[in-house]
Amino acid sequence: MYYFDNAATTWPKPNTVVSAAIKCIVKSGANPNRGGYAMAKEAGHVVLETRRELCSFFGTQDPFEYMFVHNTTQALNFAIKGILKPGDHAVASSIEHNSSLRPLNKMKSAGCDVDIVFADKNGDVSPQSIASALKDNTKLLVISHASNVFGSIQPVGEIIEIAHKNGTMVLVDAAQSAGSMPLSIKDINADMVAFPAHKGLYGLQGTGVLYVKNGIILDTIIEGGTGSDSKILLQPEMFPDKFEAGTQNAPGIAALGEAVRFIRQKNVEHIFNHENMLAKQFIHGIQGIENVTVYGNTDGPRCGIVSINIGNADPGTVENLLDERYDIAIRSGYHCAPLAHKSMGTYDTGAVRFSFGYYNDERQVDYAIRAIRELAKDL
Amino acid sequence: MYYFDNAATTWPKPNTVVSAAIKCIVKSGANPNRGGYAMAKEAGHVVLETRRELCSFFGTQDPFEYMFVHNTTQALNFAIKGILKPGDHAVASSIEHNSSLRPLNKMKSAGCDVDIVFADKNGDVSPQSIASALKDNTKLLVISHASNVFGSIQPVGEIIEIAHKNGTMVLVDAAQSAGSMPLSIKDINADMVAFPAHKGLYGLQGTGVLYVKNGIILDTIIEGGTGSDSKILLQPEMFPDKFEAGTQNAPGIAALGEAVRFIRQKNVEHIFNHENMLAKQFIHGIQGIENVTVYGNTDGPRCGIVSINIGNADPGTVENLLDERYDIAIRSGYHCAPLAHKSMGTYDTGAVRFSFGYYNDERQVDYAIRAIRELAKDL
Repeated sequence: MYYFDNAATTWPKPNTVVSAAIKCIVKSGANPNRGGYAMAKEAGHVVLETRRELCSFFGTQDPFEYMFVHNTTQALNFAIKGILKPGDHAVASSIEHNSSLRPLNKMKSAGCDVDIVFADKNGDVSPQSIASALKDNTKLLVISHASNVFGSIQPVGEIIEIAHKNGTMVLVDAAQSAGSMPLSIKDINADMVAFPAHKGLYGLQGTGVLYVKNGIILDTIIEGGTGSDSKILLQPEMFPDKFEAGTQNAPGIAALGEAVRFIRQKNVEHIFNHENMLAKQFIHGIQGIENVTVYGNTDGPRCGIVSINIGNADPGTVENLLDERYDIAIRSGYHCAPLAHKSMGTYDTGAVRFSFGYYNDERQVDYAIRAIRELAKDL
Repeated sequence: MYYFDNAATTWPKPNTVVSAAIKCIVKSGANPNRGGYAMAKEAGHVVLETRRELCSFFGTQDPFEYMFVHNTTQALNFAIKGILKPGDHAVASSIEHNSSLRPLNKMKSAGCDVDIVFADKNGDVSPQSIASALKDNTKLLVISHASNVFGSIQPVGEIIEIAHKNGTMVLVDAAQSAGSMPLSIKDINADMVAFPAHKGLYGLQGTGVLYVKNGIILDTIIEGGTGSDSKILLQPEMFPDKFEAGTQNAPGIAALGEAVRFIRQKNVEHIFNHENMLAKQFIHGIQGIENVTVYGNTDGPRCGIVSINIGNADPGTVENLLDERYDIAIRSGYHCAPLAHKSMGTYDTGAVRFSFGYYNDERQVDYAIRAIRELAKDL
């Protein structure tokens, strides 16, 4: 199989990552932070080590600024609903995923006001348009670091600076960037960052992370046992316990620690250059083919995501043909980002998304180009 | 190590369960239900198969009545907050875990009214006391099938019948019973049931399940991408998509499917009898020891949980001594169930909890009895 759906989940996973999960299950399978005996402490240690790896990787200091949750969607919900109160204003860009747009929409019905800043047809969100959208009561800005439809990369540092001048907090959706491109949370000075274990970091499905800068107070949407302050019926305020109610996915968290080590060893700059190079190779290979439309900026840097269409062919049909005839795995449709498709001009059709990862190579991309060339003749 | 903390998480896990997770990662590692290509379909198939296993095991018909979430805490939050609206009344028992008590307490601050029905000193909740607590506006009753502190088993079928006569929906917390004792969701006629993969079912940490009977409408507390109806900004109403926003823990769900097969093969009645027998052996072995208090009903059936204290010794000290001197893993304190300790009379002290599992045997329990006998002399 030629796997080009790395924006949905990266595959395959490094052996070390799988081994870390197994080791955690077999050797330190207790409930982390829920007992004083040796194996429970060991499980707690595994979880703490992953927090430390994240600190090192993202350039922050305090391991307890990272909270482990189910997935990025949950991290975004925790952040959005933890911050916004009725009467607050929020801004998001059109490239945001439904994992931000839908909770923001829910908050609208709870009395919040939400404005969308539209990206241009290349999927770029201009800092100026963000600045224009901010109001006195803009409590939160939600912005993706990289678009899951365009592959475009946003100048999040600059955008965050603008928001902060307005007293607006910024939640960065790093679903497509964490592990796939250099990201220093310290340097961009983000207030909150949500990201998955299982995409660019090459960890496993079942673990998402929410970074919350010390000092930010979030309300909870999920409460439960934390292993701390068990006698009180209120959720403890202590981070990260406050947001990690119930049994944690210890094997997934152990795998994430090893995944971050994998990325650090391979070097995230190298990975970014590799994926950017494959995306460019693909773009240049199909650009000249009659009947093929390539979306987004075809020259500047991008993450390994390229959306295309072939004539007026239904993207779902293209996905099926690529699968059946060429054993190529890609993702068609709206990619859970309907407004990004509005920016792209594909709101009525959807698109065909290729997303390249660390384990893809030039030979595979050549094969994909040949497949597109053949299909373009038939469709 | 002598592992007697199976109420926190069961350990070790069957090899087949670990293998199922690995196989899912390696062979069908796509994002389930998020693409039309072969591996994505295969991942979707793995998830559906687990739903079917749950159906067979719990005696229900529709695989889509089961929603996969992060853990039982999340399942309970989804159920409680999905049902209750300001002005509604809810009833819970004192043996409930903080995973129910804390979200219920949160709903109090949102304008709900919550009453607690206290269990007796054996951890038994009488159906009559539940009946007395129900009001005209009692929308929801939350009741644990088995107490994580007493090991007591509640007559949930009878309790549900009483609640239904009042027009009250019932959420059963099966955290300590699913997989550890026979439970037919069909027979007890529960409206919602929350349970973990990683306890009695011998699956992995990182997966919880919420069963919701067809026809019950729940609001969401988490929204996001579902791979369905991607163009609309409202959360789709379709079950289970509505409650499975974002990437699912496919390896964990695959492991759960295999875990249910494991339990069916071993026979849940046999497992229940085995754990009940070990608990009884333990109780009878330590009952006569001077200085030792055994809580709860010492004769009737119970799940494999036994809470004790040794004289006035701090339970944390006992946990440490058992760990250091005897390599015995148990859990001391309040077990995230403070009101259960009120019922037990241990609200000021906490207790020492032994919880036996399928992989424990009589020889290990004998060893635990000897350890308690020795410690009782020293403390």
